Amino acid sequence: MDALVSPPDKRVISQTFAGSTITLDGFLATFETYLVGRANYFDPAVRDLAVQALASGGKRIRPALVHACGAGNLAVSENLIKASSIVEFVHVATLVHDDVLDDASIRRDRQTVYADRGATAAILLGDALFAHALEMASEFPGNEVCRWVAAATRRTCSGEIQQSFLRGDFTLNSSHYKQIIEAKTAELFTVSCRLGVHVAGLDDATSSLACEFGRRLGLAYQIYDDLADVFGKEADFGKSLGRDLAHGKVTLPTITLFSKLSKVEASRLHEKLFNSGPEPNPEIIHEMVNLMRKHGVHNECRELLDEELSAIGNTLSEFTDDTIARRLDDLRQVIVDRMALLLS
Amino acid sequence: MDALVSPPDKRVISQTFAGSTITLDGFLATFETYLVGRANYFDPAVRDLAVQALASGGKRIRPALVHACGAGNLAVSENLIKASSIVEFVHVATLVHDDVLDDASIRRDRQTVYADRGATAAILLGDALFAHALEMASEFPGNEVCRWVAAATRRTCSGEIQQSFLRGDFTLNSSHYKQIIEAKTAELFTVSCRLGVHVAGLDDATSSLACEFGRRLGLAYQIYDDLADVFGKEADFGKSLGRDLAHGKVTLPTITLFSKLSKVEASRLHEKLFNSGPEPNPEIIHEMVNLMRKHGVHNECRELLDEELSAIGNTLSEFTDDTIARRLDDLRQVIVDRMALLLS
Repeated sequence: MDALVSPPDKRVISQTFAGSTITLDGFLATFETYLVGRANYFDPAVRDLAVQALASGGKRIRPALVHACGAGNLAVSENLIKASSIVEFVHVATLVHDDVLDDASIRRDRQTVYADRGATAAILLGDALFAHALEMASEFPGNEVCRWVAAATRRTCSGEIQQSFLRGDFTLNSSHYKQIIEAKTAELFTVSCRLGVHVAGLDDATSSLACEFGRRLGLAYQIYDDLADVFGKEADFGKSLGRDLAHGKVTLPTITLFSKLSKVEASRLHEKLFNSGPEPNPEIIHEMVNLMRKHGVHNECRELLDEELSAIGNTLSEFTDDTIARRLDDLRQVIVDRMALLLS
Repeated sequence: MDALVSPPDKRVISQTFAGSTITLDGFLATFETYLVGRANYFDPAVRDLAVQALASGGKRIRPALVHACGAGNLAVSENLIKASSIVEFVHVATLVHDDVLDDASIRRDRQTVYADRGATAAILLGDALFAHALEMASEFPGNEVCRWVAAATRRTCSGEIQQSFLRGDFTLNSSHYKQIIEAKTAELFTVSCRLGVHVAGLDDATSSLACEFGRRLGLAYQIYDDLADVFGKEADFGKSLGRDLAHGKVTLPTITLFSKLSKVEASRLHEKLFNSGPEPNPEIIHEMVNLMRKHGVHNECRELLDEELSAIGNTLSEFTDDTIARRLDDLRQVIVDRMALLLS
């Protein structure tokens, strides 16, 4: 059935990566071509949808993690591009499903597959993207890559389910919250690092350190993303601000705010949020953001984020390979910079 | 994270399968325990949902195919049970998502996860079930099992997407229809046979024959299932009769009927079906079933089904292993019997 499909740009990749280390920008440029080229594995009727979902940009943080761990001290190979595509396929699949769940019509300034082609197409496309991620994983020798990717995918979904069950329950404590984002976000960051190290053939000690870095960066990234939903500027994110709030999602800013309110205030706000119709109106969201500013919620969240970022610093200092440590530190710096911008 | 989870009933399986061939009933009884036991791999918050979806019964045709191909002439092993669980996990995941897409509250006399816990839980649970199917696949040595299962899953979803895009387009010809159900249904039947043969360590010729049998049985099964939606009795199926019709799904009975109508009749019926509100009312469905009876649609569909069943007979006669051929023939007979009952 796939007989007519040739592997995407194999020739291009081998020309680009003829044994030399490559910068992140160069890597990501080749990665984009490969990623979208993978849509050729899909039936013609589904291919355009796959391209629409895959080519919608995004920060490509997970591929950058694969690159940092795998290309630090070795030549970049097609396998590293493929490993990056695996994690990005899983990530994009979760986004395609999230858009259905969040009833989201726009993501990164483009119409979502859900808005464009409906829930049926979006749900089934997400499934097919998940499946193709695992197909790519099965192109690696042995069964390890499949096992890691499948387990990380299961845990990612599991974290999302748990978060959805807690919708509107703002009494959640921060350690339970951390447990959820560890599954929902940090699993895929971790497996990105694991795959990079694996492709580069580095030792177990480096793998453990890289995974620990990935896990903590995932936590930091999710905390940042939660804050950006509340305190960001719409133009910077290409997604609707306050959407998490409007959906009653338990995030760090909301649970922090509720921990500061008296029982009476908390119950009054909760009622306002959920008894005003199917979704809270913009005024209530606005009031909530103001309450967060008043109670210094962003400072407290920032402290938690700083904790993670400083723990990441400790992890980085343990790497024996300076190139990997430097590249990973660059990725940490991206979050530090964005955070500074967000709360400026 | 899975440290507390012990593999499900490993001890029970080795006791049951201490080197002896086993009947289908015995196999399926052990399979059910193993299947549901696999829910232990999920986080506590998700486990009950997984059990609800997995334990909802069903005909277990795909596991029966794995058994027929893998236990025909060899002792049954835990691997055969595991292979059966892989295909059933994929199948159940598609059902959980189908229930969201079809807005279905009841499946096999039980409330669906979608009706019980909402679309978010159902979509994410389906994803987690897919992922765990691949996790099980990665417990086999090498990467073949992962590759086969992931590719079959992608093609299954791809077939479903194509069918959804053609909703209401009853001018589809039967060869295009066959191409769609080959992906949507026959892929998973085929991979079930492939896995059974693989676990039993049988030769390539047997694998090809078994896969061909699986593919054709999948086609026959889907044609039967399409007919059952129109001509069945509600009590026999535990799903709403005429649901496919009501959703404008292109199925063999509908495209056959439309091929028999004049242009004017066809356009009048099409308008009635889709211009009467979001869903056609029961009278229109009833009228359509009567039209099908009048135009002998069930006989014509039955001929196509008989073609498949007779091709299956040819495939069976080529098997050198009588035990496998006999067991597969039993499964063919199940469809023959149900079909006879349906059109009696």
